[in-house]
Amino acid sequence: MAITKEDVLKALSYVEEPDLGKDLVTLNMIEEVAIDGLKVSFTVILTTPACPLKDLIRNACIRAITTMVDPAAQVTVNMTSRVTTARVDTTVLKGVKNIIAVASGKGGVGKSTVTANLAVALAQSGAKVGLVDADISGPSVPTMFGVEDARPVVYRTPEGQNLIQPIEKFGIKLISIGFLTPAEHAVVWRGPMASSALKQFITEVEWGDLDYLLIDLPPGTSDIHLTLVQTVPVTGAIIVTTPQKVAIADAVKGLQMFRQPQINVPVLGLVENMAYFTPAELPDNRYYIFGQGGGRDLAERYGVPFIGEIPLVQSIRENGDAGTPQILEEGSPATAVFKQVAEEVARQISVRNASLARTQVVEIKA
Amino acid sequence: MAITKEDVLKALSYVEEPDLGKDLVTLNMIEEVAIDGLKVSFTVILTTPACPLKDLIRNACIRAITTMVDPAAQVTVNMTSRVTTARVDTTVLKGVKNIIAVASGKGGVGKSTVTANLAVALAQSGAKVGLVDADISGPSVPTMFGVEDARPVVYRTPEGQNLIQPIEKFGIKLISIGFLTPAEHAVVWRGPMASSALKQFITEVEWGDLDYLLIDLPPGTSDIHLTLVQTVPVTGAIIVTTPQKVAIADAVKGLQMFRQPQINVPVLGLVENMAYFTPAELPDNRYYIFGQGGGRDLAERYGVPFIGEIPLVQSIRENGDAGTPQILEEGSPATAVFKQVAEEVARQISVRNASLARTQVVEIKA
Repeated sequence: MAITKEDVLKALSYVEEPDLGKDLVTLNMIEEVAIDGLKVSFTVILTTPACPLKDLIRNACIRAITTMVDPAAQVTVNMTSRVTTARVDTTVLKGVKNIIAVASGKGGVGKSTVTANLAVALAQSGAKVGLVDADISGPSVPTMFGVEDARPVVYRTPEGQNLIQPIEKFGIKLISIGFLTPAEHAVVWRGPMASSALKQFITEVEWGDLDYLLIDLPPGTSDIHLTLVQTVPVTGAIIVTTPQKVAIADAVKGLQMFRQPQINVPVLGLVENMAYFTPAELPDNRYYIFGQGGGRDLAERYGVPFIGEIPLVQSIRENGDAGTPQILEEGSPATAVFKQVAEEVARQISVRNASLARTQVVEIKA
Repeated sequence: MAITKEDVLKALSYVEEPDLGKDLVTLNMIEEVAIDGLKVSFTVILTTPACPLKDLIRNACIRAITTMVDPAAQVTVNMTSRVTTARVDTTVLKGVKNIIAVASGKGGVGKSTVTANLAVALAQSGAKVGLVDADISGPSVPTMFGVEDARPVVYRTPEGQNLIQPIEKFGIKLISIGFLTPAEHAVVWRGPMASSALKQFITEVEWGDLDYLLIDLPPGTSDIHLTLVQTVPVTGAIIVTTPQKVAIADAVKGLQMFRQPQINVPVLGLVENMAYFTPAELPDNRYYIFGQGGGRDLAERYGVPFIGEIPLVQSIRENGDAGTPQILEEGSPATAVFKQVAEEVARQISVRNASLARTQVVEIKA
């Protein structure tokens, strides 16, 4: 009996997307089913190119066809992705599917390092990525991407709007106050000025189509944070912390800020940075200089996914200072950790888009 | 021939205060000269109880008397101190001799840790010390001093003014936003609100007489920094940094901010924190995880005194988390480093008071 398209779809309707808790057919993740005798091929549209479950889903599809349709079937599974979005409004950042805030209560926990590596890892997986350096008084992005001397060009659209063209590096579109002011100049800005700079970075930059726009926020809970949620609907926030008590205490504040009813941005997960140090001479020793388990405990206590722990590795800092994010250094253990972190973040975004309500722009009465 | 007071003062007029570049008599540092036969005693009034040159000055005094007055003289040098001030206006903080801002461009460099240890070290040397935790969105002082549950009392002066009584711990008067809001509550404040909180901490707290009031500033260059220099004449600023490039870049911004003509607060020195890590198993190894020499280079480049480098030591973090600053742990190498740093800071304050113009409250046009 010849295999039919219906047979294939029926079998695939038993394959569940583990994160989203529904089957691939219901989720409209199957396309281009083609049958030629025993040759069966179809395309699975993942919700992110950085999907960590890619192999698992592929194998489940093959197993479903060979057990439920025909043991002799020759199955070809093509995997592609279409990043999901929960956005409805498109008055600002029309082409941007997901706006991800990277925050930390405390400064110096490596938020910019995590953001830079996350951006490059997502781009390497095939996603279109942009990055806003919203740390107006201490922008690190120009150094970390090795584009300290880049100066963005402003051009006038046919409609007469002035748009800033972001700087591109490693496939990422970048904007930072560091591109607009001399490196050694202190920007002492009153809150409203900093906020209007961020607003400009979001609304007057030619971002085009992006799967992920990451916003590297300044530490703390300030004007900038309020401005962000008032300007665009933020898909979700990632909190970065180090393990020590004073950092955890500030991370809680950051987390609570996003959960305040008038802000209400889902926290997609928590990343613990500088988790432990391993000297090259003692590769089995882990020195928990800043304490152990603080990030994981916090994530559990507040019911937030724990994204992962990043070790304190000299090469991460060196690569950051050199303008080549760690993730570009192939084969290193630190690179593998960042890759996992990026996959986990992409996964949490997909889950969030499939399950939570759409985020609204927040209106706060002055 | 009997020794006279004039002989003693003449001899001491050849003893120079090395930092201030003048002799002890001209500097009015000699008091209570008493002579009884061959017994000569006098008191040297140092400019700070944390004076690192104490022994050097004492020995120079004895040598001056025995060589220039009488080799048989039995010299007793009493050392005491009277912290100097460069303040003239006393409309706010009447009894406070020196207002020291501790700043960093970048967060997470250990500014609060340095400030806490500096405060305790100065108090241990005999100085009267207060500490304002001006990090409104991430206050660390309550944790670092183990007074998380302390709640300051407000009382009404006979003149009808409401004054907040600071919390006292380890002999230090403390105030922090952490005493006024629940620990896990995010304070999302617009700039002007944060600034008015700082203003209140300075003008509506019963500070009394203090030799040093340290202000632990939030990272960056923001409203709070402008408010501080507009509210009180800041004696000087200490910049804390870690060695990596992105931290140094922000430290430069912090430094430049204080040097802006309309702010004009002298930078007393630069402290490099987390300079290197030494595992207990390899006591001779120094791992320069965050890079080497960044702080010293920066200090040289900008003509700022280099106060010292503090290693990355697990006990410093543990003591901070436990509410007992490192400096209280006797005999540890990290404690010795903090003590030196405190002495060097006190010394730079004395030098500044003796040489530079008085700092004015800054008026900035909106």
